Amino acid sequence: MAKPRIYMHDVSPRDGFQNEAVFIETADKIAFINQLSQCGFAKIEATSFTSPKAIPALRDAEVVMHEIERVAGVEYTVLIPNVRGAERALACGIDEANLVMSVSETHNRANLRMTREQSMAQLGQIIEVLQQQTLAKPVAVNVSLSTTFGCPMEGDIAEAEVLKLIDNFARQGVRRITLCDTTGMAFPSQVRRLCRKAKANYPEVTFTLHFHNTRGLAQSNVLAAIDAGIDRFDAALGGIGGCPYAPGASGNACTEEVVHMLELEGFDTGIDLQKLLQVGAVLPSLVQHDVPSQILKAGHRLTTHPAPAYVQETGQPKPKDAAVGVIA
Amino acid sequence: MAKPRIYMHDVSPRDGFQNEAVFIETADKIAFINQLSQCGFAKIEATSFTSPKAIPALRDAEVVMHEIERVAGVEYTVLIPNVRGAERALACGIDEANLVMSVSETHNRANLRMTREQSMAQLGQIIEVLQQQTLAKPVAVNVSLSTTFGCPMEGDIAEAEVLKLIDNFARQGVRRITLCDTTGMAFPSQVRRLCRKAKANYPEVTFTLHFHNTRGLAQSNVLAAIDAGIDRFDAALGGIGGCPYAPGASGNACTEEVVHMLELEGFDTGIDLQKLLQVGAVLPSLVQHDVPSQILKAGHRLTTHPAPAYVQETGQPKPKDAAVGVIA
Repeated sequence: MAKPRIYMHDVSPRDGFQNEAVFIETADKIAFINQLSQCGFAKIEATSFTSPKAIPALRDAEVVMHEIERVAGVEYTVLIPNVRGAERALACGIDEANLVMSVSETHNRANLRMTREQSMAQLGQIIEVLQQQTLAKPVAVNVSLSTTFGCPMEGDIAEAEVLKLIDNFARQGVRRITLCDTTGMAFPSQVRRLCRKAKANYPEVTFTLHFHNTRGLAQSNVLAAIDAGIDRFDAALGGIGGCPYAPGASGNACTEEVVHMLELEGFDTGIDLQKLLQVGAVLPSLVQHDVPSQILKAGHRLTTHPAPAYVQETGQPKPKDAAVGVIA
Repeated sequence: MAKPRIYMHDVSPRDGFQNEAVFIETADKIAFINQLSQCGFAKIEATSFTSPKAIPALRDAEVVMHEIERVAGVEYTVLIPNVRGAERALACGIDEANLVMSVSETHNRANLRMTREQSMAQLGQIIEVLQQQTLAKPVAVNVSLSTTFGCPMEGDIAEAEVLKLIDNFARQGVRRITLCDTTGMAFPSQVRRLCRKAKANYPEVTFTLHFHNTRGLAQSNVLAAIDAGIDRFDAALGGIGGCPYAPGASGNACTEEVVHMLELEGFDTGIDLQKLLQVGAVLPSLVQHDVPSQILKAGHRLTTHPAPAYVQETGQPKPKDAAVGVIA
């Protein structure tokens, strides 16, 4: 029997790099994305067409999009905040436009400096521009709903608010929606419940889940979403990406940890994990700090180590009173 | 309907502190255990009666056990490697003796410097000594099986090997067994399968699961074990405790992250999470380094933060071309 397929999206070049204090050189970004493209992702979020003043870390969006080597089978998506961004991105040949707004009114105002109503109007304009394109291969539209599982300022978010926004965009013809756990507030039973409802009510929409590991729940949330029939996940290599409301806490779900887990659980992610770990190994020097990924340090669960010399040398070591019992 | 009960054991004073490079002052250990005792744990692993030469970090086992304030309802367990350790521990009034050996032959030799056969004989002697006690409240015996889900030197471990060891100890009258994922090699479907078999074959045994977060799977493994009917878990506050085969990777399952998750999932852990987070807050200064816990940094998922001033001040902020879209 074929293994069930899970589609992985790596968002580290956008959701990760945008949070880095140090500017990552354009050539390094391009080389990094090119390596990611060889790992088997369904989608890579390569950059963001926001104002260079707002996010200087990604001020090289055009160059990055022009110079990366596209690999067949990989969709290249970019974050787009407004019509100006959409026009810039379209000129670079993107596969998907990722629009974003928050389910939480307060978070939307804090993050986008607009009311939700204003965001909906603005996203509506972008969607219209994109739908009017007459390209041979039309650009897909994805809407990412931030704070779906909770807002760091408002607290819990009503499911009805999420469903209302999904409904709003589905009516405009959007067929791809990402439910984002922006600051790691989601928990498994909540994820399972919302995903079931969303899928049942909007069978025409393909949902992606986007978790942050802020409270150590990203992996469990991925499994819960799969229980509910979700088969697409955003994650960032190394688990990079920040959370401005939890300084020092982990960022995005860690791509290589999600892949390692899913492969062990019998899913086909399409990812070459060994290759991915090699790409990840360069991250700490690229971002100039340690990254949250455990797997990058520990390796695959079947990474074996040589036994200490005293075990290898003696066939039958003598019992010692000073038995150590260090590890349990 | 009453929430299902999960019993939490904190092992940080033993499995955590034994790995610390800096000696934690005896008075600090005692104060720390006293605080843990107020949080609602079913069990606390307070120290280890190993040779002070083998584990100098816990050379103060007697003083710790004599001076901590025992709280009714909390069992105080200690790690015991041999008959000498059992005699020392019995003189201190313990509730449970935790004996340890590995399922993996190579790991047993590396960690305990004995063959498994020699370990079984030695543990048999300790069990006999403990069973011959005629105390008003007999000391319980727990056997911890290291490398149950994999060995960092041998790789995969056959389920049959685990079941054979469980059988060996069940026949000797042991009614408490801990299945230890010593170096974080367990994954959810493996955990579910083995726990189901162990519980079905040995209904007279109470099983505890002991996970390490070496590859980011501790939380998912806890949920998988609960699926299989397990209701007792070891974990360490702060996620401290090392893994000598994965330098820099996380240690034990993090107590406060497990509790946070289980309470959200509708279980009653008996733990006062707010109190626990206060105890955890002292850990970095106690061990003199950052600890893996995410929750200690981020707080409970409903920890809310004030909105930025520009959101609070303006009722209807004006849309700006430079919309940020920093967080998704």
